[in-house]
Amino acid sequence: MTDPLPPGPLPPGSVIGILGGGQLGRMLSVAAARLGYRCHIYEPAANPPAGDVACRVTTASYDDATALTEFAGAVDVVTYEFENIPTEALDLLEALRSIRPCRPALAISQDRIAEKDFLNGLGLATAPYARVESRADLDVALKTIGTPAILKTTRLGYDGKGQARIMAPDQAEAALAAMQGAAAVLEGFVSFSHEVSVIAARGLDGSVACFDPGENVHEAGILRRTTVPARLSPAQRSDAVLIAARILNALDYVGVLGVELFVTPAGLLVNEIAPRVHNSGHWTQNGCAVDQFEQHIRAITGWPLGDGSRHSDVVMENLIGDDIAKIPAIAGERHAALHLYGKPEARPGRKMGHVNRVTPR
Amino acid sequence: MTDPLPPGPLPPGSVIGILGGGQLGRMLSVAAARLGYRCHIYEPAANPPAGDVACRVTTASYDDATALTEFAGAVDVVTYEFENIPTEALDLLEALRSIRPCRPALAISQDRIAEKDFLNGLGLATAPYARVESRADLDVALKTIGTPAILKTTRLGYDGKGQARIMAPDQAEAALAAMQGAAAVLEGFVSFSHEVSVIAARGLDGSVACFDPGENVHEAGILRRTTVPARLSPAQRSDAVLIAARILNALDYVGVLGVELFVTPAGLLVNEIAPRVHNSGHWTQNGCAVDQFEQHIRAITGWPLGDGSRHSDVVMENLIGDDIAKIPAIAGERHAALHLYGKPEARPGRKMGHVNRVTPR
Repeated sequence: MTDPLPPGPLPPGSVIGILGGGQLGRMLSVAAARLGYRCHIYEPAANPPAGDVACRVTTASYDDATALTEFAGAVDVVTYEFENIPTEALDLLEALRSIRPCRPALAISQDRIAEKDFLNGLGLATAPYARVESRADLDVALKTIGTPAILKTTRLGYDGKGQARIMAPDQAEAALAAMQGAAAVLEGFVSFSHEVSVIAARGLDGSVACFDPGENVHEAGILRRTTVPARLSPAQRSDAVLIAARILNALDYVGVLGVELFVTPAGLLVNEIAPRVHNSGHWTQNGCAVDQFEQHIRAITGWPLGDGSRHSDVVMENLIGDDIAKIPAIAGERHAALHLYGKPEARPGRKMGHVNRVTPR
Repeated sequence: MTDPLPPGPLPPGSVIGILGGGQLGRMLSVAAARLGYRCHIYEPAANPPAGDVACRVTTASYDDATALTEFAGAVDVVTYEFENIPTEALDLLEALRSIRPCRPALAISQDRIAEKDFLNGLGLATAPYARVESRADLDVALKTIGTPAILKTTRLGYDGKGQARIMAPDQAEAALAAMQGAAAVLEGFVSFSHEVSVIAARGLDGSVACFDPGENVHEAGILRRTTVPARLSPAQRSDAVLIAARILNALDYVGVLGVELFVTPAGLLVNEIAPRVHNSGHWTQNGCAVDQFEQHIRAITGWPLGDGSRHSDVVMENLIGDDIAKIPAIAGERHAALHLYGKPEARPGRKMGHVNRVTPR
């Protein structure tokens, strides 16, 4: 591993290297600029959204050792905007530069089984789950867990991709086929009233700050809306924050982490964690003085964290695909803050932007 | 003049050319990205603050016809972040691309006498003033206007530069010498209780929207603090907004305009106008869903304007020179939003950033 960075905040003008150039990288880059830092984006695809607001862009694949080495040499710290970065790329980078958040968080979130093992090991409740590598595994798992259940690839899943529902045992074969031979996990359906998420952060000094939990609504496996405040009792609110803090501390985490939770009669269950800024935290841009993007930059550069306090209620709505047709109407709404990602083409399911509708408290 | 742009908003991905690459250009560039536009900065100085968050930077002087022509060809509309742009550069650009806000606004704000003539022509009150091109002019002016008074160059003044106070007639000679031969204007002192400013906007369709007036405190000729809401009666608040709207309409203005007003027992006097986003409007970044930077981008690209409504009270404080030493303490404050400009060196009087301290209403 490389030498750790010196203590104290990175000096102004330092360069933050961001792996991934999508909208999360774009909004991280703006937040970094606000604190006096510059960003260098590493992204395989041409013309990434983050490139519009970054100092520099490297367009290269994650197996390009020369480009990765040059990137590491040009930046002061490395972070990432998505979790599915090939391990080999991280091995190479980590030998040259500090990576924040740390590798174990990334490794755990890249594998649904490792993640659930980790969470259960901390005493946190999750949906029942079982590893599935064959039809025989699946049959056993279905007997234990029952239907309905959901089969998911253990790796590289996001926004509902790599998932198949099994409503009855006769759908097992089709679900397994949908995994295309990849290792999978069967998860039992959880009877929950609603989903909330906590956007939590841990600083270099180990301090933890959480934003108020938001309540999420998904459509077709993609986040549609986050409402803050969420419907939670004071006790549930404390539980949610304590769960997030336990995860952060266990990982010796530095940065922002998204924790999705199911609200059930038996308490809160952890659905999944994301070791990065999170779509369900976009409301913070217009609800807090320090938003999740700046919070992440503060954490990885050694600043004190914002305290996460909220000055307004917010409803965040994603603008997906053809939703961009709504933009003219939204532009005329009172207290509506638009955030577009500069993507040239509106494909179905593609996140084009979001709107934060703000209500002063 | 070039062909006007087509009606309706500029399509996503269009390029906004910004003359000037300081902090105002930087924050305009971020706002433009939020609406899906890209920015191209034109700036004579190397490594401009706006360059960190812009798609492209042209480093060239304002008399470089080749660079200006290439810039005009690479952008869809031209705007500016400061008013002291040489006329010849604007003549060249205007033949190739629409410039918003329009030339007359720029011409008026570049000349203190033209500005005051214009304002008085609209029936708006200003301080008493007289043109001074010689010692004889100054003596006559001092007899009419009296002392204390202030002598200012008619052009290229900002942040208190090019100004000399005359507390008694025997200081006339020194004040005149400080003008270094430039045409000047003598302005009478106004007895005012405080200064406020209105950040006003006018859209392509002629609609007008104003942010709540802010109350400004200057130190050494530089804005130190803006507080919103300002101390104004409801009638004064209406007057302030009506004054700004009258100016915008008279100029057939498109974009954001800053109007500084003195609050006096006899009513509001116009101190000066700035045909651009304004330091005293930085509070809008954390007080409104649509801030002054986005409002300007909305206006010049043909979007509907935000309505200017405010969700929080805000105190904006500039961080000037050594004030950057305060940053660690500010970073730990609740509800404090920091905005740094990425300038490498903290010189005395140099604006390094600002902080918006937010109080939910």
